[in-house]
Amino acid sequence: MNQSSISSYKNKFENELFNSVIPFWENHSPDYENGGFYNCLDRKGKIYDTRKHVWLQGRQTWMFSKLYRTVDQNPNWLKMAKNGADFLLNQTLTEKDRVYFAVTETGKGLWMQRKIFSECFWIMALAEYSRASGEAKYLQEAQRLFEKVWGWSSDLTKVGQPVYEGAQPMSQLAIPMILLNLIEEISGGDFSDFQTEIQECIRRVKLHVHSDRKLVFEQVSPSGDFVNNIDGRLLNPGHAIEAGWFLQHWARHINDDSFSKMAIDMVRWSHETGWDDQYGGLFYFLDSEGHSPVQLEWDMKLWWPHTEAMYAHLLNYSITKDENDFKLFEEVVDYSFEHFSDSEFGEWFGYLNREGKRTHDFKGGPYKGCFHVPRALYLCWQLLTEMEKTN
Amino acid sequence: MNQSSISSYKNKFENELFNSVIPFWENHSPDYENGGFYNCLDRKGKIYDTRKHVWLQGRQTWMFSKLYRTVDQNPNWLKMAKNGADFLLNQTLTEKDRVYFAVTETGKGLWMQRKIFSECFWIMALAEYSRASGEAKYLQEAQRLFEKVWGWSSDLTKVGQPVYEGAQPMSQLAIPMILLNLIEEISGGDFSDFQTEIQECIRRVKLHVHSDRKLVFEQVSPSGDFVNNIDGRLLNPGHAIEAGWFLQHWARHINDDSFSKMAIDMVRWSHETGWDDQYGGLFYFLDSEGHSPVQLEWDMKLWWPHTEAMYAHLLNYSITKDENDFKLFEEVVDYSFEHFSDSEFGEWFGYLNREGKRTHDFKGGPYKGCFHVPRALYLCWQLLTEMEKTN
Repeated sequence: MNQSSISSYKNKFENELFNSVIPFWENHSPDYENGGFYNCLDRKGKIYDTRKHVWLQGRQTWMFSKLYRTVDQNPNWLKMAKNGADFLLNQTLTEKDRVYFAVTETGKGLWMQRKIFSECFWIMALAEYSRASGEAKYLQEAQRLFEKVWGWSSDLTKVGQPVYEGAQPMSQLAIPMILLNLIEEISGGDFSDFQTEIQECIRRVKLHVHSDRKLVFEQVSPSGDFVNNIDGRLLNPGHAIEAGWFLQHWARHINDDSFSKMAIDMVRWSHETGWDDQYGGLFYFLDSEGHSPVQLEWDMKLWWPHTEAMYAHLLNYSITKDENDFKLFEEVVDYSFEHFSDSEFGEWFGYLNREGKRTHDFKGGPYKGCFHVPRALYLCWQLLTEMEKTN
Repeated sequence: MNQSSISSYKNKFENELFNSVIPFWENHSPDYENGGFYNCLDRKGKIYDTRKHVWLQGRQTWMFSKLYRTVDQNPNWLKMAKNGADFLLNQTLTEKDRVYFAVTETGKGLWMQRKIFSECFWIMALAEYSRASGEAKYLQEAQRLFEKVWGWSSDLTKVGQPVYEGAQPMSQLAIPMILLNLIEEISGGDFSDFQTEIQECIRRVKLHVHSDRKLVFEQVSPSGDFVNNIDGRLLNPGHAIEAGWFLQHWARHINDDSFSKMAIDMVRWSHETGWDDQYGGLFYFLDSEGHSPVQLEWDMKLWWPHTEAMYAHLLNYSITKDENDFKLFEEVVDYSFEHFSDSEFGEWFGYLNREGKRTHDFKGGPYKGCFHVPRALYLCWQLLTEMEKTN
């Protein structure tokens, strides 16, 4: 790896982000009549369903707020962000402070999960939009809901999740991860008021990292033990890799070298475990003991584990200067741009079969929107810009 | 098609049913210590999770009861059936007459759906076991729960399914279908007490059959109109084919030729729509307007649409004597036995990718158990036996 390689990657990511991905969402998604964004968009950006999925409303609002605040004060980006933030605030929240999973075009409730993720993406969006716009009320709303979500997160019966007699309590990696994410967004980087919460989240995340086996489990017992059933054996390499780069940011926040080392390992191990040596790409799910996973889509190659891996390996390399980390970055970038990027109509495809053949054409759907692709391109582009200067 | 071909198929199905499929479940599934059946079984029949899924507990109980009653009074089959029926009765029903979706090895509640299908398979199992064993109490329990389920089926809020302001009411094909199935099982063939219920179910089923487009929709508006969104456009060819043969039985019960004609068409149209001309096999899901389906597994080839299609085409042929129906039967039988049957360890595999390559090895899982394979082999074998005699 040399300096020209860094510059060339920087240009590649910058071009993909600002000439392919962001224009796709600017051109096709906004609904200025009803508010919010159409997120069920086909390959060309045409709407194939008018319902609006709130995870993606929140994530897109967050993304455009972030770009406006940190890249360029492009008035259209602020307009997009405001359109999302106001829709979230006015159309997706119930009287009980629950946030819908999906609403109609005009913001009428369609479905609510017995989970807290809609609320989490809502909070992130409003906090970042508040910083972008300078309007305090959005952050206040985000902080208000955060207090509630923090309480719900340790007792999901409060959002209607039943607990039955035979169910073994399990710790879910996704919960402390998303809470750390919320703290980052809510606090705006001043963590002094959140020390206890941060330590608790980090304690819980660590339970999932089993160094002896070089595995990151999605679900473990409350004391961190491996549970030998379908849930306990579940590996989600993309999620563990995403957790890795995210915790690396936290290692910097809390200035903890051993935590940084753990985060580096999480990415490397999960790539090693999750990469398909036969056809390339990262598997979606695996069973830690080699059983046939029960998820039908386990061997598919989804866009988001790859976008997360691009940034995770680059971040590892920026710390370790280990050429093998850069090699992994290049391997994932090659696979991703070759298989997912759509140079004809912009944005990325989302779903391939194990062999790497595209199975779905849409650019936006119930779980895919304006988030993983632009966020990873943005993070890589920013890091490459920094590396270009300092190398 | 000639007589020797019928005999040869009859022997093929008889051999597969009694020498491969049924022995697999007899050898590996019963849990006589705790009651019920292990249903998470790997390729060789080894248990990879001890939890028990109630759909499959019910279906396996039904299957062994049916075999005992109609094929051979094999004491082990009755023992298996009793083991399932008692587990269902004593370990899976709550005080509120809800039935769990999954329980632990010892029958403690793990999960409950906000749907009525666990209750339905419970009812079928107990009704058929009652006939097999001659013990009236099981049928009484089944009848008692049927009364409740009938009420819940037209208002799913009664099983906790929320209805939100923006949600458009939709008719689900699966509901009148399973109610007809329950009536068949509960009544034992004497339909005199169920005339109103039967007419209502048939009216609702017909709403889903759009002859003008030769399509069977999973969800339509309450008046039967096509709804142009993700849900309304959903096709499930295997389900429509299963509905076809099942309604053919009802056409016989109610002695209605035009209904019989509709049932024949449902199978032919859905095969035509659902068959993958490029790689063979039936797609799992399609979008009626040709959009990319949002289900990740849409292009996979699952065992059960093929088991249903085998019997559906054979049943069509037995009525129409149209050689093309027999050709379709042969096409599906060839594909199924080549791809799904496991001559080494018994039973059938469940899941292939679009190209027909096996993606999962297990024989039993949360949604696959002792049901579709033996039921279809049994139905084909019985029909072929009859055809052999009468031709």
